[in-house]
Amino acid sequence: MAITVVGSVAFDSIETPSGRRERCLGGAATHFSLAASFFTDVRVIAVVGEDFGPEQEAVFQARGIDTRGIERIAGKSFFWEGSYLENLNEAKTHATELNVFAAFEPKIPDAYRDSEFLFLANIDPVLQRRVREAMPDARLVAGDTMNYWIKDHRAALLEVLKGLDILLINDTETKMLAGNNNLVHAARAVMALGPHTLVVKHGEYGATAFFSSHSFSKKDAYEEHIFRAPALPLEEVVDPTGAGDSFAGGFFGYLASQTEITPATFRRAMFYGSVMGSFAVERFGTERLQQLTRQEIDDRFILFRELTHLD
Amino acid sequence: MAITVVGSVAFDSIETPSGRRERCLGGAATHFSLAASFFTDVRVIAVVGEDFGPEQEAVFQARGIDTRGIERIAGKSFFWEGSYLENLNEAKTHATELNVFAAFEPKIPDAYRDSEFLFLANIDPVLQRRVREAMPDARLVAGDTMNYWIKDHRAALLEVLKGLDILLINDTETKMLAGNNNLVHAARAVMALGPHTLVVKHGEYGATAFFSSHSFSKKDAYEEHIFRAPALPLEEVVDPTGAGDSFAGGFFGYLASQTEITPATFRRAMFYGSVMGSFAVERFGTERLQQLTRQEIDDRFILFRELTHLD
Repeated sequence: MAITVVGSVAFDSIETPSGRRERCLGGAATHFSLAASFFTDVRVIAVVGEDFGPEQEAVFQARGIDTRGIERIAGKSFFWEGSYLENLNEAKTHATELNVFAAFEPKIPDAYRDSEFLFLANIDPVLQRRVREAMPDARLVAGDTMNYWIKDHRAALLEVLKGLDILLINDTETKMLAGNNNLVHAARAVMALGPHTLVVKHGEYGATAFFSSHSFSKKDAYEEHIFRAPALPLEEVVDPTGAGDSFAGGFFGYLASQTEITPATFRRAMFYGSVMGSFAVERFGTERLQQLTRQEIDDRFILFRELTHLD
Repeated sequence: MAITVVGSVAFDSIETPSGRRERCLGGAATHFSLAASFFTDVRVIAVVGEDFGPEQEAVFQARGIDTRGIERIAGKSFFWEGSYLENLNEAKTHATELNVFAAFEPKIPDAYRDSEFLFLANIDPVLQRRVREAMPDARLVAGDTMNYWIKDHRAALLEVLKGLDILLINDTETKMLAGNNNLVHAARAVMALGPHTLVVKHGEYGATAFFSSHSFSKKDAYEEHIFRAPALPLEEVVDPTGAGDSFAGGFFGYLASQTEITPATFRRAMFYGSVMGSFAVERFGTERLQQLTRQEIDDRFILFRELTHLD
């Protein structure tokens, strides 16, 4: 089933211990849709400026991603510049230029309206809510957010959470959102705000899903579940940018490819999320996901299984 | 097969967000041997003072632990006071009184000499090496260390590592010992110093084992393996003291209980390590391990399996 994703399509200048890249294609919706495109049809809603040309468009086309919802307007695309020189787990932001993104008014092409899966990438919760409301038929809605929205736009964010099935955030964001330093308690508090499923991303340590029978197609008696997917210990992390969005793309893309969501498909989705995140960081920007094959994905899935399974 | 462990038997005064305990029984050898005692026979080498009485002795006796190697001398036992008020992952030390431990000269009872498994808990590497040399028949030798020895007693520690099969340390210690910030590269560098197996403990995120065919009874062509055991997301961490030693006890105790070390037993050992660590933190000091049953251990093993396995 098709996923519609709304979020940023941007240019990133990135410096890491492995080197530097100027203005490579980036943005949460870009990383998400590339990762998800290996599993299902993906449709993007975003806004870009005149600097978004055929070269960038071709990256989406090569993966069969529907870009009719990427609006092109006068001006420059969203631009981010950051480095990970001291700590590969945390970006240091040097510049954020919203540019055309500052006045982003998501417009949903008619051809997108039958999307049963909707992903609200990390943008202003006011926009997330608007898109969610404009797509009332979406059967499963997942989303991301960040510390900035949690701290300074809490009321708007709480409205978004009410309409969300699955929230994907990191440890710090979970604890901040809940105002609780214990992950289990914090997870429960966040789930009480709306999402029946919470995926907490731990960076190099993988991710934990907190879910319940409400997470599945067949809803039995309410029961809490926890599932932990590993991350692959990597010899080289070239560029962590987009790892979380790639995780979300693999996770949600796999779910959307399944006819039914069961505990088993859910667990596999967590693994595919980790798999896509592990590829994303192997090269700068979108380079690795652009070259990736489904065979490599399946091989790494088996590697993740061996990494964690007793037999 | 029996394990001999050498390390500290001590008194700890501990403060955590859950409360405070004065002078509870602690020390690496204590936590290790309690955890390992659920799997195999354990023999302790340590030194204590006159404050170590029948009450403390009874804790070991109740678990069938051989204490003939715990020397009692005039003076007070090793004492540590610490708190975890701001961060449950890192202790703040308020006082360390070595007392009788300052002049510790490990003496190995004859009855211990046939131990095929030897665990060198975190003590002065000079003493670790002495015990290792005094037990040349030990078939599998594992050990722990800490940042203090890595930084200021490197030469002595390197001698210990040469005689070690398995080293269990945390992320920071691994990177510090290797002088490399990438975990995979650091692990390889540490294994080049001696141990064919390295278990890196990640606290609340579990542990990663780096091992090779040399880790097993049947040594095939050299092949690198990585295995990740999770930690249980816990609703309440009452006291993290001894979690790492309990992990080591579960891990090494299970290995010692097996007739052969295969990739499968090795993976199960990692799980039992995580299981014992998860129990240890549920109460202050040794309280939880004292009350534990084998049935609870097996139940939690199944829980860990569900937490990580696809089906």
